[in-house]
Amino acid sequence: MGFTAAVAGASGYAGGELLRLLLAHPNIEVGTLTAGGNAGSRLGEHQPHLLPLADRVLAETTVDNLAGHDVVFLALPHGQSGALAQQLGESVTIVDCGADFRLADPGEWERFYGSPHAGTWPYGLPEMPGGREALSGARRVAVPGCHVTAATLALFPALDAELVLPEAVAVGVTGTSGAGKSPKPHLLGSEVMGAVAPYGVGGGHRHNPEIVQNLSRVAGEPVTLNFTPVLAPMPRGILTTTSAPLRERVTTDRVRDAYQRRFGDEPFVRLLPEGTWPTTAMTLGANTTLVQVTVDEDAGRLVAIAALDNLTKGTAGGALQSANIALGLGETVGLPVAGVAP
Amino acid sequence: MGFTAAVAGASGYAGGELLRLLLAHPNIEVGTLTAGGNAGSRLGEHQPHLLPLADRVLAETTVDNLAGHDVVFLALPHGQSGALAQQLGESVTIVDCGADFRLADPGEWERFYGSPHAGTWPYGLPEMPGGREALSGARRVAVPGCHVTAATLALFPALDAELVLPEAVAVGVTGTSGAGKSPKPHLLGSEVMGAVAPYGVGGGHRHNPEIVQNLSRVAGEPVTLNFTPVLAPMPRGILTTTSAPLRERVTTDRVRDAYQRRFGDEPFVRLLPEGTWPTTAMTLGANTTLVQVTVDEDAGRLVAIAALDNLTKGTAGGALQSANIALGLGETVGLPVAGVAP
Amino acid sequence: MGFTAAVAGASGYAGGELLRLLLAHPNIEVGTLTAGGNAGSRLGEHQPHLLPLADRVLAETTVDNLAGHDVVFLALPHGQSGALAQQLGESVTIVDCGADFRLADPGEWERFYGSPHAGTWPYGLPEMPGGREALSGARRVAVPGCHVTAATLALFPALDAELVLPEAVAVGVTGTSGAGKSPKPHLLGSEVMGAVAPYGVGGGHRHNPEIVQNLSRVAGEPVTLNFTPVLAPMPRGILTTTSAPLRERVTTDRVRDAYQRRFGDEPFVRLLPEGTWPTTAMTLGANTTLVQVTVDEDAGRLVAIAALDNLTKGTAGGALQSANIALGLGETVGLPVAGVAP
Amino acid sequence: MGFTAAVAGASGYAGGELLRLLLAHPNIEVGTLTAGGNAGSRLGEHQPHLLPLADRVLAETTVDNLAGHDVVFLALPHGQSGALAQQLGESVTIVDCGADFRLADPGEWERFYGSPHAGTWPYGLPEMPGGREALSGARRVAVPGCHVTAATLALFPALDAELVLPEAVAVGVTGTSGAGKSPKPHLLGSEVMGAVAPYGVGGGHRHNPEIVQNLSRVAGEPVTLNFTPVLAPMPRGILTTTSAPLRERVTTDRVRDAYQRRFGDEPFVRLLPEGTWPTTAMTLGANTTLVQVTVDEDAGRLVAIAALDNLTKGTAGGALQSANIALGLGETVGLPVAGVAP
Repeated sequence: MGFTAAVAGASGYAGGELLRLLLAHPNIEVGTLTAGGNAGSRLGEHQPHLLPLADRVLAETTVDNLAGHDVVFLALPHGQSGALAQQLGESVTIVDCGADFRLADPGEWERFYGSPHAGTWPYGLPEMPGGREALSGARRVAVPGCHVTAATLALFPALDAELVLPEAVAVGVTGTSGAGKSPKPHLLGSEVMGAVAPYGVGGGHRHNPEIVQNLSRVAGEPVTLNFTPVLAPMPRGILTTTSAPLRERVTTDRVRDAYQRRFGDEPFVRLLPEGTWPTTAMTLGANTTLVQVTVDEDAGRLVAIAALDNLTKGTAGGALQSANIALGLGETVGLPVAGVAP
Repeated sequence: MGFTAAVAGASGYAGGELLRLLLAHPNIEVGTLTAGGNAGSRLGEHQPHLLPLADRVLAETTVDNLAGHDVVFLALPHGQSGALAQQLGESVTIVDCGADFRLADPGEWERFYGSPHAGTWPYGLPEMPGGREALSGARRVAVPGCHVTAATLALFPALDAELVLPEAVAVGVTGTSGAGKSPKPHLLGSEVMGAVAPYGVGGGHRHNPEIVQNLSRVAGEPVTLNFTPVLAPMPRGILTTTSAPLRERVTTDRVRDAYQRRFGDEPFVRLLPEGTWPTTAMTLGANTTLVQVTVDEDAGRLVAIAALDNLTKGTAGGALQSANIALGLGETVGLPVAGVAP
Repeated sequence: MGFTAAVAGASGYAGGELLRLLLAHPNIEVGTLTAGGNAGSRLGEHQPHLLPLADRVLAETTVDNLAGHDVVFLALPHGQSGALAQQLGESVTIVDCGADFRLADPGEWERFYGSPHAGTWPYGLPEMPGGREALSGARRVAVPGCHVTAATLALFPALDAELVLPEAVAVGVTGTSGAGKSPKPHLLGSEVMGAVAPYGVGGGHRHNPEIVQNLSRVAGEPVTLNFTPVLAPMPRGILTTTSAPLRERVTTDRVRDAYQRRFGDEPFVRLLPEGTWPTTAMTLGANTTLVQVTVDEDAGRLVAIAALDNLTKGTAGGALQSANIALGLGETVGLPVAGVAP
Repeated sequence: MGFTAAVAGASGYAGGELLRLLLAHPNIEVGTLTAGGNAGSRLGEHQPHLLPLADRVLAETTVDNLAGHDVVFLALPHGQSGALAQQLGESVTIVDCGADFRLADPGEWERFYGSPHAGTWPYGLPEMPGGREALSGARRVAVPGCHVTAATLALFPALDAELVLPEAVAVGVTGTSGAGKSPKPHLLGSEVMGAVAPYGVGGGHRHNPEIVQNLSRVAGEPVTLNFTPVLAPMPRGILTTTSAPLRERVTTDRVRDAYQRRFGDEPFVRLLPEGTWPTTAMTLGANTTLVQVTVDEDAGRLVAIAALDNLTKGTAGGALQSANIALGLGETVGLPVAGVAP
């Protein structure tokens, strides 16, 4: 069973990670690669680590160039996916790594993105309740934001099991690749190394309403969230520390049971053995999310921490996992479970 | 006005930072340097960056070697300070960078350190209400833990101004030097680079009760705290993100006023201009703490973030600042306000 | 065609990388894992990134535990391979990532390792002249040192084509994982980050005589080498800058031709397009070596630079590539050509 | 004795380091700060680590704004210094951190910079033979390039003592701040971390002819140099490994004697004790250069390695050291000898 895939935005970080994973996928062949300003250049100039594709020339990101593939992965700035999808038609499976079709509430979309709401597509987080069903056979997939995947997987089992009040706090420490490849002074190596730097503090990050949306769906009631993303000196990885007030005194064992019920059969999410806390280094290049949870008795809070690679499970790996489901392939096909360490 | 100072634990990270600062101090001369296992070796073997002291030979950490100085800085594992101080006598000013005399509650001491409580000394955080008065002329100083200084300075003005409920959450992202120089596998460069790693999760970190002690004193009521320290790939720096539920709707302006009243005249703590968030890189090698605060309206929480250098303001610089006060010198003498960047 | 493999030294960095690659190998099944001091513990404690093997318990490194596999990979301190190999017998394919059987000259062995010479095994660098032939069907493989692979691949084509005099200079900048997992103060993250540090200067590094051996074989005459390894703040990667005096004025084109002839058909070594220089980041986690070469006309020297991942092509990937040849499998089976970046 | 200093280019890395040092200088007061595109903004936006100057507003880089100071430090792109200097007049001491007045040979200048030669100024490397004399009372100073200071100090004593042939090889591993603050894709943190990357290979780096000029002056004959700069993942620091063929067999002792004669009385250059090799981390933020030298007997080469902080001794500290001499102040006034570590 063979499919072909086009990748739009192939010269960026998400596009590069999609290609790395597709090169190892037994059922999907890499088709046309497109770019914006980098169209016309060799992929090797932008992704020198992808040797087998080094001499591929990047085409313009146009409907014509993307048409004729079974799957199209979009790794574009937000605002472009809707028109491309409409023109590509219903028969093509489109997996959007951008934000356009993630938020259900038009008001929230407009508040955080400042442009008209495009709609919503099936949501690419199979591990959420009902997640797989929504993706099975879907022709459209909205891949979650990287911080969103980490925060959601860290906290939703506690809300689902009604262990905590719907008042969450999260701090997501992330590597720099999530900020993309467009050069800005504060992202220079000289600035980044040695710097731990918060951004989007106080509710302003665009992943904020998306986490709230996910957690509220699972909780069945509105969840408030105070989310602070923090940039750390490493290229990849997110470690998100979440907490919420316990509804009543519970043991760590009971909390672990709730998480184990959720994640015990998941191929890409693992509750670590008690006493072991996840680190970003455990997940580099793998499509995994590692989770640990405990009870802070003095503070009366549940603390759950998740680690993942923002480019793999947080973007391109998550996209491919959802594509596997959408295309009727095995969910885990072609996706690495072992990371690269040290 | 000249003083002499001995440094016990001169081959470690805190000891090295004390010496770097003392070398630039116009009123304190570096006297005897002592060590434990490294006694007998040249300082240059352990602190090759301190060229002017490279050929000093480390003495054993004994009362005899430390005696005869005006000030003794202790940078030792906990448990050793009490006996040394008693034998050195009341006339010597002793500044302890260790934990022994920080906690007032014997129960909390024993719970977190597992040994009998030694007592409490004047607390080396001049910026706290009443802090300077307690240190003026003191012959004993207990220097706060590095995470403690960051979390306390981030949050106490909000509690002092009764803006928030006494239910704090804090995530302190820290460089590796706080873990010391004793080689352990998880602190290897190969493990640390690329890894963001939580530890002491759920209330277990020894700085936890000390932050609670500080915040409760200011609040005038017990404060709960959920504190998660996180190791990041950099040698120095702490960035602590704190939050607490607002008592009522307030504007960011009012919150900033409360902080500005507290810190406006402080020589080493600065509330940054609105919209600028502190980063660890802004404080490298300086005795400063940079703070910013805002209101997360959707979540109904105040968010305050502080950045400092764990070895400077977080340990050795804070120690020297308190020593300056205790000795009757100008509080800011010999302490760098400008950091080293990039 | 299925083989089973045991890995001795599975809790170390080389062992972990072997396992990561074996997990993706279609024809080799991971058998027994052994360790020294870590025997009895779960692999997940030491290699948390290898999720599929997390619950495997490490056996003692003994002949009994290693016996019964088709292949045994040894990732042990030097001095242990010989006895194990003898007892395991001639029918087992043994691939030694250690140094014991690399050097042909007993005098050089004793000078650099201080112990009796154990002998020589077929050498695991298929890209050298005659390299593949020596490995085909071999039951013993000595995997080259990581610096050796980089320096040899950078310079041997120039010697082979008689473009340069046999007087080489090389500086190999390397990540920290080559120093292993045994905790030493100078390898602490606090020491490593921000530090570029030479070691083994002046001819003292143990990879020195091995590079000389390789280059001299190709040159057909004794080659002198001044080699300086330098530690850099990253976990993985080697970038080796080599140069040698040109025999006569030649163009960069002619030099590139000589390299292209050597590497044009190699699956894992690539001469980059003119003007593109290799970086370690291009090779992370891949079994590739990237090479570039030019002429410094003013200095009259050829300059050749190679980059590789010290744990992949430099150790475990090179080992598996040679094992593939020795076992009669396709040389490239199961080995990643695309790296992980950024 | 008080002077005032203007700094042109105050928002860049060299300008920021000049200001950090000037803040601690007892005899020079910080006057006007100027910038190009950043004129009109607060210094705190660009140099948030320089708290005492945070509210200074940057003026345009014009003669009018720079006039009226005793000293003007220029940290500008090359090509601007000549006209500014002429208009500022002979009575102002001008210290140029740029390249314009470094090279004596117009042909070499045009070959490497592609613009007409502006001339030469007294050269700001006091440690070279005759260096101090040339700077005493000078009204113009050309500060050497950062790679140049490292390579020159590493190798000139060996040439001066006629220990080696005039055929040098050097590899300079450098942090990223030397590349400046202008954002380019390859300098992004995501690209830099994990990457060791050569540039200007084969003789193309602009510091190449300047090193050759220095070494040839000392040697009294033309010196050839093969120089390869390499970017490493750290903000600051240069470690340069140099070597050259020995004229005859000499002992390491004799070589060390030659270096000790040169550097024994130098306040900012130190020959380390035998067996200790310099690292960049030993020099962070200090105006020091650490040197070590040995003999590679097998290769018949002398190997000398120097480490320094490219922004301190390599640029701003070296500039201030030369300014001290030019102004008749003590050479070491206000310059840190102890570094910041870890």
